[in-house]
Amino acid sequence: MTIDTVINAYQQVIHERPLVVNITNYVVMNNSANALLAIGASPIMAHSQEEMAEMMSFAGALVINIGTLDSVWIPRMRYAIEQANANNKPVVLDPVGCGASQLRTQTARELAQLANILIIRGNASEIIALAGNKANSKGVDAEDSSEHALDAALTLVDAYRCNVVISGEIDYIVTADGYIKLGNGSEMMPLVTGTGCCLSALTGAFAAVGEMTGLAAAAVMSIAGEIAAQRSAGPGSLQLHLIDALYQLDEETIRQRINLL
Amino acid sequence: MTIDTVINAYQQVIHERPLVVNITNYVVMNNSANALLAIGASPIMAHSQEEMAEMMSFAGALVINIGTLDSVWIPRMRYAIEQANANNKPVVLDPVGCGASQLRTQTARELAQLANILIIRGNASEIIALAGNKANSKGVDAEDSSEHALDAALTLVDAYRCNVVISGEIDYIVTADGYIKLGNGSEMMPLVTGTGCCLSALTGAFAAVGEMTGLAAAAVMSIAGEIAAQRSAGPGSLQLHLIDALYQLDEETIRQRINLL
Amino acid sequence: MTIDTVINAYQQVIHERPLVVNITNYVVMNNSANALLAIGASPIMAHSQEEMAEMMSFAGALVINIGTLDSVWIPRMRYAIEQANANNKPVVLDPVGCGASQLRTQTARELAQLANILIIRGNASEIIALAGNKANSKGVDAEDSSEHALDAALTLVDAYRCNVVISGEIDYIVTADGYIKLGNGSEMMPLVTGTGCCLSALTGAFAAVGEMTGLAAAAVMSIAGEIAAQRSAGPGSLQLHLIDALYQLDEETIRQRINLL
Repeated sequence: MTIDTVINAYQQVIHERPLVVNITNYVVMNNSANALLAIGASPIMAHSQEEMAEMMSFAGALVINIGTLDSVWIPRMRYAIEQANANNKPVVLDPVGCGASQLRTQTARELAQLANILIIRGNASEIIALAGNKANSKGVDAEDSSEHALDAALTLVDAYRCNVVISGEIDYIVTADGYIKLGNGSEMMPLVTGTGCCLSALTGAFAAVGEMTGLAAAAVMSIAGEIAAQRSAGPGSLQLHLIDALYQLDEETIRQRINLL
Repeated sequence: MTIDTVINAYQQVIHERPLVVNITNYVVMNNSANALLAIGASPIMAHSQEEMAEMMSFAGALVINIGTLDSVWIPRMRYAIEQANANNKPVVLDPVGCGASQLRTQTARELAQLANILIIRGNASEIIALAGNKANSKGVDAEDSSEHALDAALTLVDAYRCNVVISGEIDYIVTADGYIKLGNGSEMMPLVTGTGCCLSALTGAFAAVGEMTGLAAAAVMSIAGEIAAQRSAGPGSLQLHLIDALYQLDEETIRQRINLL
Repeated sequence: MTIDTVINAYQQVIHERPLVVNITNYVVMNNSANALLAIGASPIMAHSQEEMAEMMSFAGALVINIGTLDSVWIPRMRYAIEQANANNKPVVLDPVGCGASQLRTQTARELAQLANILIIRGNASEIIALAGNKANSKGVDAEDSSEHALDAALTLVDAYRCNVVISGEIDYIVTADGYIKLGNGSEMMPLVTGTGCCLSALTGAFAAVGEMTGLAAAAVMSIAGEIAAQRSAGPGSLQLHLIDALYQLDEETIRQRINLL
């Protein structure tokens, strides 16, 4: 049943080619746009407050990523979420580096509070820090296992009435109804900058077609990642093969590979 | 004869290694710089008004791309065009997403008006929107065929005394003397973010050596693109092979492959 | 003995996974982060003054790269260096395009003056311009050979009490004790945008573990570059293989390949 949810959402993305507005960090803009194109979605990388009302009127979802945050970008993120709210569009929040600085923690919380229809996608340390618990982060990389972030995720689900995806060796898809564990992926993925950010972008594409748990995006990304890793001699190749694998993916492969624990 | 124009311009770029100043969007800065380096040109990615007068005094051309536009970047684009004008240097304008927002449409028109020596390079929807016609755009991706944009391109040629390149399955190279159709390229190219933006960057390199129609850049880019696509399992590989194909290109290959319709 | 210094520093980076804060240019943020991840370091791409004091309290080094400089970024760079100083952390300065504009030359000098513990990494033209000599630059690409920049580097060592790495066909590692020449690398490397910027990022990782000459980073980067170039049909492939080669590198390969002249 859950697998059918994933497959249905996947068919819908291919069929509807949803527009996804991304306010993301400088480091991963290129990868994020390419990941969206590879699954058949249509990326819009726009941030100006002078065009965001128009953009959110016809876009299907908004992705906010705080990876290279500053005081110029925060008002843009806030305003974009307000426009998403005004148009009843879902928001995906990627709290990159949450816990590594007060600025990131506070901004992530403020943005999470602001969004009406919300999915939060982060690594374990970010989810723990966002929930106000003590995280073992090291810079922007997670040191905690996903399992340790489960309580924090449930706190966030309750506090922000949102769904939460904890990325890691095992992904946790956490909603008010409980949680699902996903065992796909490759340990080489964290060695490519922005794989988590790309997952957040894909989560936006699936949210745009109504898949609000985050499971379909996590499955598509981690299955593509494990296929790509098998072809890759290192993280340079992996970055390329990941886009190719997203492009080549089909329902049959998803059905065969998906590893719900 | 037209083929010889392309070949001569290609030889000149290799020989003169023109400096091209790019004010482009965050998403494609890396690709654009690499595409310019691959054909032997020298990219300068600079935008500060405090250095633009100097930069345009020794650069051969200016490329303006409005892909991630905002109120901070617009004055920089305006100022850079003024410096290009002051030095009699050609400007290439890439009106990314023109028609998707008022901000983009108005800014693209203002910048087109400002440039003295101008080539506009866009997809069909952008060209139609820029000319004030009704476009079938979907976010920043074209839904119109290049042919439908031909009238709009002729309007722009007249309004801004410029040349226009409409990119698509068939490229239209439009000048006051008429138009040329180019049939090279691959349908996989739009699945890599920034292939159009890279073409605009290359158009700047060719403009710097006096090739003001945009044909040589369109031919080089689309021939490299079709070579690259034959080697590519998906858009991830294509992004890489496109740079390699630009680097490996030679006159003989251009002569054999160029497909003027 | 010098080789052992390189090997020891390499072991330390792998063992300690140093955090490196990068304020770098838009064009190379992705490559720089991936290069750091590939050698086992942990990149933080952050620039906001609201979080830099925290970031520099736990980071091991700061890398400042002026490639896409403007008046918004200069105060951020200044403030970050002050925080590095306050925490006794080393700073790597990459004076991209120094000499191509007054803005770049003056800013690079001001930032060099400000940093207490400093390595400067640039190409010959940038080093010459920074020292106030007349450089044969062409935009942001070097036209001078590294050897011609040696006097300028010694001037900088004296003026800023820093170490200097001049990148080129031969790299010069210049300190108050003299200089070392390194013959590794590939002539294809300058055709990929940001290989120098990636070297500066790696120099930060090695500085974070106490290798303050810049030799270890230069050796690791240029050895990886020559391995990658042998596998590459062009600069597109090289960009990918460079990350893979950095990831696959080991002590034995460094010992066998290092070419100290």
